[in-house]
Formats: sequence, C-alpha cells, structure tokens
Amino acid sequence: MIKAGIIGSTGYAGSELVRLLLGHKEVDIAWYGSRSYIDKKYCEVYQNMFQIVDNVCRDDNMRELAEEADVIFTATPQGLCASLVSEEILSKTKIVDLSADFRIKDVHVYEEWYKLEHKSPQFLPEAVYGLCEINREAIRNARLIANPGCYPTCSTLSVYPMIKEGLIDCSTIIIDAKSGTSGAGRGAKMDNLYCEVNENIKAYGVASHRHTPEIEEQLGYAAGSEIRINFTPHLVPMNRGILVTAYASLKSAVSYEDVKAVYDKYYSSERFVRVLDRDVCPQTKWVEGSNYVDVNFKIDPRTNRIIMMGAMDNLVKGAAGQAVQNMNLMFGFEEAEGLYQVPMFP
Amino acid sequence: MIKAGIIGSTGYAGSELVRLLLGHKEVDIAWYGSRSYIDKKYCEVYQNMFQIVDNVCRDDNMRELAEEADVIFTATPQGLCASLVSEEILSKTKIVDLSADFRIKDVHVYEEWYKLEHKSPQFLPEAVYGLCEINREAIRNARLIANPGCYPTCSTLSVYPMIKEGLIDCSTIIIDAKSGTSGAGRGAKMDNLYCEVNENIKAYGVASHRHTPEIEEQLGYAAGSEIRINFTPHLVPMNRGILVTAYASLKSAVSYEDVKAVYDKYYSSERFVRVLDRDVCPQTKWVEGSNYVDVNFKIDPRTNRIIMMGAMDNLVKGAAGQAVQNMNLMFGFEEAEGLYQVPMFP
Amino acid sequence: MIKAGIIGSTGYAGSELVRLLLGHKEVDIAWYGSRSYIDKKYCEVYQNMFQIVDNVCRDDNMRELAEEADVIFTATPQGLCASLVSEEILSKTKIVDLSADFRIKDVHVYEEWYKLEHKSPQFLPEAVYGLCEINREAIRNARLIANPGCYPTCSTLSVYPMIKEGLIDCSTIIIDAKSGTSGAGRGAKMDNLYCEVNENIKAYGVASHRHTPEIEEQLGYAAGSEIRINFTPHLVPMNRGILVTAYASLKSAVSYEDVKAVYDKYYSSERFVRVLDRDVCPQTKWVEGSNYVDVNFKIDPRTNRIIMMGAMDNLVKGAAGQAVQNMNLMFGFEEAEGLYQVPMFP
Amino acid sequence: MIKAGIIGSTGYAGSELVRLLLGHKEVDIAWYGSRSYIDKKYCEVYQNMFQIVDNVCRDDNMRELAEEADVIFTATPQGLCASLVSEEILSKTKIVDLSADFRIKDVHVYEEWYKLEHKSPQFLPEAVYGLCEINREAIRNARLIANPGCYPTCSTLSVYPMIKEGLIDCSTIIIDAKSGTSGAGRGAKMDNLYCEVNENIKAYGVASHRHTPEIEEQLGYAAGSEIRINFTPHLVPMNRGILVTAYASLKSAVSYEDVKAVYDKYYSSERFVRVLDRDVCPQTKWVEGSNYVDVNFKIDPRTNRIIMMGAMDNLVKGAAGQAVQNMNLMFGFEEAEGLYQVPMFP
Repeated sequence: MIKAGIIGSTGYAGSELVRLLLGHKEVDIAWYGSRSYIDKKYCEVYQNMFQIVDNVCRDDNMRELAEEADVIFTATPQGLCASLVSEEILSKTKIVDLSADFRIKDVHVYEEWYKLEHKSPQFLPEAVYGLCEINREAIRNARLIANPGCYPTCSTLSVYPMIKEGLIDCSTIIIDAKSGTSGAGRGAKMDNLYCEVNENIKAYGVASHRHTPEIEEQLGYAAGSEIRINFTPHLVPMNRGILVTAYASLKSAVSYEDVKAVYDKYYSSERFVRVLDRDVCPQTKWVEGSNYVDVNFKIDPRTNRIIMMGAMDNLVKGAAGQAVQNMNLMFGFEEAEGLYQVPMFP
Repeated sequence: MIKAGIIGSTGYAGSELVRLLLGHKEVDIAWYGSRSYIDKKYCEVYQNMFQIVDNVCRDDNMRELAEEADVIFTATPQGLCASLVSEEILSKTKIVDLSADFRIKDVHVYEEWYKLEHKSPQFLPEAVYGLCEINREAIRNARLIANPGCYPTCSTLSVYPMIKEGLIDCSTIIIDAKSGTSGAGRGAKMDNLYCEVNENIKAYGVASHRHTPEIEEQLGYAAGSEIRINFTPHLVPMNRGILVTAYASLKSAVSYEDVKAVYDKYYSSERFVRVLDRDVCPQTKWVEGSNYVDVNFKIDPRTNRIIMMGAMDNLVKGAAGQAVQNMNLMFGFEEAEGLYQVPMFP
Repeated sequence: MIKAGIIGSTGYAGSELVRLLLGHKEVDIAWYGSRSYIDKKYCEVYQNMFQIVDNVCRDDNMRELAEEADVIFTATPQGLCASLVSEEILSKTKIVDLSADFRIKDVHVYEEWYKLEHKSPQFLPEAVYGLCEINREAIRNARLIANPGCYPTCSTLSVYPMIKEGLIDCSTIIIDAKSGTSGAGRGAKMDNLYCEVNENIKAYGVASHRHTPEIEEQLGYAAGSEIRINFTPHLVPMNRGILVTAYASLKSAVSYEDVKAVYDKYYSSERFVRVLDRDVCPQTKWVEGSNYVDVNFKIDPRTNRIIMMGAMDNLVKGAAGQAVQNMNLMFGFEEAEGLYQVPMFP
Repeated sequence: MIKAGIIGSTGYAGSELVRLLLGHKEVDIAWYGSRSYIDKKYCEVYQNMFQIVDNVCRDDNMRELAEEADVIFTATPQGLCASLVSEEILSKTKIVDLSADFRIKDVHVYEEWYKLEHKSPQFLPEAVYGLCEINREAIRNARLIANPGCYPTCSTLSVYPMIKEGLIDCSTIIIDAKSGTSGAGRGAKMDNLYCEVNENIKAYGVASHRHTPEIEEQLGYAAGSEIRINFTPHLVPMNRGILVTAYASLKSAVSYEDVKAVYDKYYSSERFVRVLDRDVCPQTKWVEGSNYVDVNFKIDPRTNRIIMMGAMDNLVKGAAGQAVQNMNLMFGFEEAEGLYQVPMFP
C-alpha cells in the first residue's frame, strides 16, 4: 500500500483522481491539497464524497508532502508544479504532473505558448511524457511524469498508427476537436455558466490553443520529423468527453483492411484503446467514466483522405485516469488497477 | 461464484445491471436475454460494452434459464415476469423482478392501476418487497423479490422515519417527484426524443401514476394504517436521477435535532442512505452512478410542515443497484458487493 | 414613439427587455445602462445584438436618464431602484422596477426577507403590483410599477381563480416550483457553472425563499385574508422556463367542468393566459420565448385535492415580457404590442 | 395578402415555417398539410400553437392545394415533391421545396447519393437553388425553388468569398460541421432519444453524407470548376444550431485585412450575414431563433491555412427562414419580412 498526495484536489481533475484512487487497491490518499479550501472538509467541497472521504483540505506544501507520500499528483494550473519541484523532492517521492509544465521538451516553445517563465527547466530532460501506450517502458522508470493534456491524448492516439507507418502526408494533418465543459475547470467564469454553454457550440483558441505544440511534438516523434498541424478545439454542451475528428491525405491508396491492420498492430493488445468495428463511429458517451479511448477511421477515396476519429472521457483517460495508469506503471502495479470502470450509459 | 441471467438485458435498467454485475466478485452473467436483439452481439446494442462483453443476446426463455442460473433478473415490462414464473422455476432459481408484477400485495389494486390481468397471483404472498433498508431480513430468505419502483424507493426512504415515528399527519402527505429521462426506457417514442425533452419540464401521470399505490402500500405499513397520498412525477431534461420533495404536516412542533435523531435512528448504520448535514439539500448529481440515496429535511415553523427530500440515481438504487443489493442479501454476500461505486461528478 | 431607458441592461432580464423592445413599434431604447460595462458596446456584451444594437453601455444614472426617457426599466439587484427613485424622478418619467423593491407593501416583511433596509418606503403605497391580469386598471394609472417576480407570477396565476372563488382551503396550499437557470442571473458563480447545473436537479431556499411573502401577499388579496403557504423552488438544467405544481385541498367536491368554468371565467379573455384542454399538462417548452402562461389543473377525488399547474418563460412573462405588458398598459398602447412572439419549438 | 400552403407542416421545419409565417404581414397560411395527422388539430400536434392556430391538418394534396395557394412549401422527405409537382401545378402556384429534390442539377448524382429515382427531372433545369445571398436575381423570377440544405447553407456562405476571390486552393477544403438534433427530425428513432443524444457527441455519415454533393456543386460554381471536399457532420446535444469549421490552404500569404475586405465585399450589404469582429468566433447561441448566419475566419501563418467559421439556426436560415426569404424575393416583398426576429439569448 502506497501513500498518495494530491495537490489541487478540488479541481475537476483532482476530484476525479480522488474518485479513482478511492477504488484502487494499492493506494491510500494521504493528502487532499487545496489552496482554496484549506481546513474545509473535502466532502463539503464535493458532496458526492459525503461519508466516503472524511479528510480536510490542506495547503499545497509539496516539501512536507514529499515526506509523507510515495507519489504526488499535481492537478494545478500551469507553472505551479515547476515552481515547487526540486531534486530533494524527487529524491523522496515520485511526481505525476497533470499540468503542462513538463510536457514540452523545448522550454522556449513552452514559454512562448504559455506566456510563463519555466521555473525548473533542469528537469525537462528527465521528465517522461506519460502517454502510456507509447512510452510505457520509459514511464516504468520515471521519477517525474508529464501527464498528457486531454486533447493531445485523444489526438495522438487517433493519428499515431498512420504516422508511425508512414501512410499519411504529415503536412496535411488537421485536427478538429470537441470537448465537454469540465475541461474548462471549476473556476467561476461567466463564459462557463450554464446559460452560456447550454444550447451552444463554438470554436475557441483557433490556431492558437496551447495544446497545439504538445500534439505537434508527439506526432513529430512518431514521424521522425517536425510536424505542423491545425488544431481547433470546440466547446460542447456536455460535462465530459472529447471527440477528435482528424483529417490527412493518404500517401497512396490503401484499403480498409490495410488500415485496420495498422491500427490493430498498435492497439490490439492495449487494454484501454478500442479499435471499433468497421463503420462504427466513436461516441463520447460510450466511454464516459472509463479510461477507454475508442478510435476508428474512414477512408474517402473521392478525396484520397483518411478521417481518423477518437473519443474518450477528458477527466479519465484525458487526465486522472491516465495519471493513475502512469502511477501503476511507475510502481509496478497491474496497469489497469483502479481503472476497471465499465463506461456508464446512459 | 454464482450464475446470473438477465431477462430484458437491453433496456436501460438491464444494461445497468450488466454494468454493475461485471464488477461483482461473486457473479458471472450467464444469459443476456433480449427479445428484440436475439443473436445480436450485446456490445453492438450497447457499444460501451465493446471488448468487455462478448456474448450474444438470447431469447427470454425463463424455463431454460432456470436450469443454468442461480438467480434471474427480470428487467422487463409489467406482466412478463408474472406470466413466466412457476413453482418449478422458483424451486430451481431465485428471481429478482424489476417490474411491478409482485410489488403490490392486493391483486385488484395491481390490475386496476396497471390495466393488466395478473397471471401469477399465487406468488404474491411469498414475494418480498425488496426495499433492503426496510425489509432486510425477509429478503435474505426470499425466493422471489419484487424490486421496488424508482419513485417508490426514493419516496419511501425520504418519508419513512417520520411516519414510523408517528411525527406527521399521514393524511397530508404530498410527494412531488422529478425524474431524469432514462426512467422512460429505450423505446423509440416521440415524447422521449431529445428535442422534446431538452429545455423542457412537465408533470405527467398527475393523480394517476402507477407508482402511487405502491408508495401508499409501503407507507401504510410504516403507519400501520391505510394512507392516501398525492404523487406527481415530472420529467426533467437529464439522463439519470430522481429527486423527491415531500410535504407533510407535523403532528406537533419538533426541533431540527429531534428530527435529525429520527433520521439517524433509521439510517445511521445504513451504507447506502446518507442523511445530509443541516441545510444541505440533496442533489441528484451527487449520487450519480452510485447506489446512494441522499436524504434531508427542513422544518417550516410558519406552516408547521416538514419538507422531506431525497435524491438517488434511478437506474442504480432505483433499479439495478437495488436489485444487486437484494441479490447480495439473498445469497449471503457482502451487502455492498458490486456497489462500491463512488458517485461520479461532474 | 416614446423613449425607454434600461438600468441593468446587461443582465439576462435586461437583455431580454432589449430583445422585446427592439420589436416594439412605439418604443425607442435611449439608454443601455450597465455599471459593469460602461462605455463598452452593448453588442460586445451580447453578441446576438451584433449589427442590431450599436449603442454603448452607460452608467446607471437615473436622474440624468429621467430627463431623456419616458419610461425607465430597472432590471437591477434588490435595493438599487429604491435607493435611486425620488419624487422628482417620478414627476418626469414612469418606472417599471423589475426588482423586488416595491412588490411587498409591508416594509418590515421586505426588510426581514431581503435583509436590506428599504430606502424609499414612502413610495410603497403608490407602487402598483404589475400582475396585469389582476391589476390591469391600477396599472394604467401608475407611475411606479413593481414588476412581479418570476415565481410569484406563475404561482399566482395558477392558483388565483380557485382562491378567488373560494373553492380551496387556503391553509393547505403547497407550491412546488421548478425553474431554468437563467433565473439565477449572469453573475459568475460556481454554483451556476455548466458542470454544476447540467445533469442535476436540487431544491434550494427551502422554506426560506424570498418570493414566499410576495406570493402570500398576492394570494391573500385574492382570499381576503392572510395566507401562509409552502413554496419550494428547484433548479432545473435548462435555460428558460418555470413550472409550478401547486396543491390544495378542495373545500367540497367539484367536477372538472366546474373548475374549468372557473378558470375560463378569469382567463378566457386574457391574451396571455391559456387554459389548456383537459388532461394536457403545461410544459415550459411550449411557451418558450413568448409571454404566455399555460395553466391547467387536475382534481384528485381520492385525496380531495386539486393539483394546479402553470408554465411560462421566466425571462418573458416572468420578467421582461410582463414589464413590457405593464408599460403598454401605462402608456395606452395595445397590451400585446411587442409581445406577439409565437413560442419557439423545439 | 397571399395564401400559403405547407405540405409536411408537422415536422420540425414545417412547424418553424408556421411560426415564421404567423408573423408575416403578407401571408396567410391556408393549408396545414400532414399525412400523419389528417383531421387532427394542428395545435394538438404542436401545443405551442394553442389558441394561435385553430386549423386542422389536411392531406398532402398538392393538386388541390395549387388551386388555393399562391405558394406551396414542401417540408417533406426526399422524393415527395418531385413525385407531386407538375407543369399544371407550377402554372398555378409557386413552390419552395425544402427537400433535396431539386437542389442537385445532375440527376445521376442525386440518384446515386439519395438512392432514389427522381420523378421529375424535367424541372431540374428551371429550379433555382435558393441561396438568397448568391442567387438573388434568379430567385426573384423562379417558379420552383430548391431551398438549400442546412449544412450546405452554412458551409457555402462560410467559404464562398474565399473561393470566389480565388484565395484558397480548392483541392484542400475540409468542412467539419456540428449540428443540433432538430436536424434529425421528429420521427421516433432510438438514436434520437434524449438519453442517446444527451451528454454525447459523434460524427455520422462520414465521407458519405448526402449534403456533400450539394456543397460541392455550389462551391464548384463559385470556383468555376469541379471541387471535391471532405464533409463531416456531427450530432451535438442541443436542439438548434449548426456550426461549420472549414479549413483550406491559402494560395499565397494574405493579411487579416485582406480577407476581411473580401468577406465584407460579399456580405457587408447582406442583412442576414454578419461578418464578426476580429477574433470573435461564431457561436450558435448568438443566432438562435433568427435568420442570421454569423461568419468569421482566422489565418494560421504557421500552416498557411485559413479556418473559416459559420454559425446559424438550422431550422431558420437552414430551413424555414430561408424558405420565407425566398418567398419574399419571389413575390417582391421586403426581403426580411417575417424574419425580423432578434436572436434569443440565453
């Protein structure tokens, strides 16, 4: 049994971590960190935890926490983890950072897109990008995990096999993504009020969303060369779920069977990536509450393009679930431990 | 390990049973019954089960099923279970009937409200009303469980302690209930289309809803005399959840502490009934996906009435979850086995 | 053509006033007041008004506005209108106050429920409660209109005929109301975030909501004596709409036809109150975007109670529409001018 | 005053036509056609019309209707209008067909994508594609209007100026569209149940949706050559609204101001197309209930692509509103008559 601390446990991703870790056989949550609710009972902030979690929220003291915890999850705004981490802390505990601080290897790219000075660039080389299906071995040995962003997880897993196998022209990749509103967090902002989001859909961050360089970096590794994509996120009136619709030109004509074999090559032994049957389009509802990513594709011979699709729960595989999956790998637990949830429908 | 069969596994309640039983340590699902989808793969009907359930749907043959299964769940329209059950079947297997067939002891009341002839009134005496918190001991020894209706479960648990302790005037009980749309089932009806339900709320079945006599019977047992109530259900634009707001006149003035003690008396040792803290109103979202019922109350000294509130997930505690809880009691399993889900928020 | 000024034009009720007045033949909007957005273009605050409204927002200066405008609408938080109004202002312009400041005749009741000192109690006697269907003649001659609250409008109109005709026991009235989220306003509060409201329903302000004394006062006038009711509002995941389900004991047995005749007596010549056909329950969606209130009732002979129901759009008949209707009466315009919208479905 | 008949008046598009025409100064609705509800009162099918429309539904008899009506709207499934229209009918009345029957000039393309034999190909040459902003003059003189599809309207208007001015590479156009659920109609299908659509998003008709050739034909006219695009529609959990996000490669570098001037060139004098201010993304909610299309664009110098966006109400500009706009042009009415609705927010 290991002890886990959560810094930023009262955001939506943090509370999802709590939900998942409560069902994990090998983990006790030792620290419910929350700057906003210090000394308040956690279950008063998340009433679903009433009579389940009895702890009170504590300050975000990573140094003290490192003494207590075997693993620290930071579900905090960008910049915080980078400002707190140190060699001393990493010598005592492992960190899974759910923020963007260690996702991008090039500190200049990070600073340009996030408009923030990076406080710990010295840890960038050792930080491992925690996309389990792709970096599994490196994750096992990591002290510091950069837990992937929600959009990058779904985007990368949807497109990865086609790039890796060299079947698409990487200069033509366009990713049109749609997300539920929990991705915007629990902060009280007018734009996220019920009446503003409900019965509405919009694009945002067009050609400027911060997840763009993260996706480009990961797809670039698969391609073996730099990639520039268009990435357009949209806000959808639902709580959870991300759907990715990605487009690319095929280098040459391929059959359904060819491409199916490619997806199966990468994912048939993956527990959390489901390659759907022919002509079944991924739907976010079919993965809700679970760590699954459902992917599929459609070839359009008229335009010689392929449409690649992926659906997942942004709070699970897109945040807390993947963080748990990373922790499982780092500690040698069963990779799916704590993540056995069957998607909830309806 | 016991074997379970589900007749009507492709309705919403049936599919929720599948979700819960898949996580149950002591149960294998041996039979996915569905008249509508015979020979179709279950995961093509519920895509969330892709790569999780590999079975195909089978006919609703209870006689054959009784040979295979230790317990049969009937998640079917009214009348079906009553038309299939027999002494021979009950001698071989246990039945948890999620329909209304065995909920009402007086066959005339059943036939009047349901406009159906009852095909097995001989089993009404032995059938046990499966409201676990109230009939736990009888359930342990039952062969045939009448799994309570969704509205009756939430209504009864919200009001029960006040009646049992004789604190309210039973002639004044009014229950105003609000339900998500999954309670209406998966049948293709115009009234349940997205565009008809979304951005809309309405009452239905006013002074005529079939759950009325069921609630009256259960509350009558608590009171020790016949009770007539008003029960008004409403359709709310959400998938899951039932909220009950019940009103009654107090026989005499009582304090918050008095009433709190009464609720605690009945529920403090119940795992699935949470009496909330003072002034916290139950919300359906706080119990979503779990077997909890959250209850609370407010005394209004201006009118000498008490407002009693309850919230639960209609598909879990209101249907499949309670069915599993009943099965656990019948087989001597841990009562919460398969029901450890932490409510999902948001 | 008269000139209208709106103080608080950037709240949801204020913006709905703008929408309605833009289609009104006799009115020009001369002043878009908004403390929060002074000097900002109105259409940047409400993008639906792009290329329709070119004005910028101005300060809430009622004294200056009184020089310009023939009528002032105050769609502001409680207390503001009472703190700004004066004899000088009322001598120059008419005021329709959408806040609660002048709705309750007894200043002590106001101050007790609103926890506010009333700054202009001297105008309470002359203020007319602007429920057009009931106070039409007084409204025509008023300088100062207290525009009714959303819940009181729907509650009063649903119950009024039965009280007025002495058919129900006024000590038994219980009003269970359900509202869309726009009633909570556009302020950035965590409780009103999309993810908190969506897929959720809860009661709030139980036995303590501020609209209670307003409803009691109006129903008391109809009864000719003081009335105490229970009023319980609920928050529903939809933008617009209020549904009222009201319960009362019948003094003696009545037939459907008796009660229908009573409702028709009061409403058959009312343009905006529709008494639905037998057994048709009001639905909020059927009145959305319009000034209609749909009402109906159901007699329950089993309990000798009547269930009275009403549905309306909280931002139209419950706020801005009724304000326009009041203005029309005050200025001698056609009562329905600007309010010809057919409800929008779906 | 002219007389209008609506064949298919009880679908969502048909009922929206009713809503709009009821507010039109020059039109009386003479015929509420509906095969499904013959002899039923229209307001029992659409309760929002209670006490507004007193007519009963009549059979879809176009021959008889042509005697009565100056204009016939066919809001019917594909194939019906083509099977009913004749020279005799067109000599007596004008037709605005909201189905796809006359949208595609090449009958083989129609028959291939719609899997239907076209019953009146002889009228294809004279039918005018009723996209008012582009074909205004031809519409004025038409007898038979092919009212554009919802997706094609929004797609074409979003992309048209860039193609017309030759600024984008037409072989690179990708249109990713998102629609509310009313586009799926009022038919009772399981896929459109509330619980299936709510909290869910999916692509459908990938690389095979019937609106594809219609968009390609219209864009081809603008380009002066054949165009092949990718078009992917998605189903969004909301009632109304279509959002289009379109991508294309720029032929050469252009500035924001260059492109803004191009959009203004085509749309600055258009009443119903609003080119938004820089960096303001279209949102469906901002046009709800109105005939507006909001468009904007973003240049991405990193990829040398332009992202073109459009939002509209699928039932208004995407169906009934555009049909009214076409009728206005055909009869010489003010183009905006009956279409003055300010978008409703929230």
